Amino acid sequence: MSADNQQERLDAKWISGFVDGEGCFYVGINKVPNMTLKWQVLPEFRIVQHKRDIGVLKKIQDTLGYGDIRRNHGDRFELRVRKLDDLRELIKFFEQNPLMTKKRNDFELFREIIFRMNNKEHLSQEGLRRIATLASKMNRQTESGYLKSSETICRTF
Amino acid sequence: MSADNQQERLDAKWISGFVDGEGCFYVGINKVPNMTLKWQVLPEFRIVQHKRDIGVLKKIQDTLGYGDIRRNHGDRFELRVRKLDDLRELIKFFEQNPLMTKKRNDFELFREIIFRMNNKEHLSQEGLRRIATLASKMNRQTESGYLKSSETICRTF
Repeated sequence: MSADNQQERLDAKWISGFVDGEGCFYVGINKVPNMTLKWQVLPEFRIVQHKRDIGVLKKIQDTLGYGDIRRNHGDRFELRVRKLDDLRELIKFFEQNPLMTKKRNDFELFREIIFRMNNKEHLSQEGLRRIATLASKMNRQTESGYLKSSETICRTF
Repeated sequence: MSADNQQERLDAKWISGFVDGEGCFYVGINKVPNMTLKWQVLPEFRIVQHKRDIGVLKKIQDTLGYGDIRRNHGDRFELRVRKLDDLRELIKFFEQNPLMTKKRNDFELFREIIFRMNNKEHLSQEGLRRIATLASKMNRQTESGYLKSSETICRTF
């Protein structure tokens, strides 16, 4: 790593505090007709900022060593982590630098989902159902399309 | 400090990151007819959270050693720091644990205003005008009532 890059590194505890305010753990369960189970589990971690703070997203990316920066919407940009290997690193990061707000509950559900995906549980009907139930408890979100679909209700019970 | 309280202490860098996301430095210039200059400078620092995270506000309060927790609006609560002595301590805190987003600009304007209030500059027309101009550059806020008042325009130039 160059001296320049070293200057870009942020304190890990600062990142943890910033994520407690600005970060989001999210697990989408999306319909994909050409897959075996027709539903895909898509976990992601995001930090969205106004473009004036894209520099901070880059510093977080440099410090973590993974994640992509892309436009979110309008003047907002996001640092997004989607690769399973990177998400596993991210989980270690927040185990070492714990979140302090109720967002920690979302993180723990997220971690359990990644653990189950690691065990390929998302590739069976029963495992997918369990993951969708965990995901539905995150972000105070309403029940997912997957859990509400009559297909799921019929097939997985 | 009891062992219990010690457990409540947060990492200073975590607080800095959380404030980069959730904190607000604000300087109100309020009309108070019975004061000599008719305008009062009211600097304050705030962190607003949903009531589910009032525990985190208390931990921040315990760690800093100052600030009041009160209802902000509806389900939201705030940790507020208004006393000049406490704000001076807060400034030292963020000098030691720097903000990383553009919020640092607000902090630097805030610090300059507190410095000028320390020198009693807010008690003269000229000093008040300078403070109001600094305050108008914070939080991308529009020009204050004080700067727009014909009274100010007539009297201070």
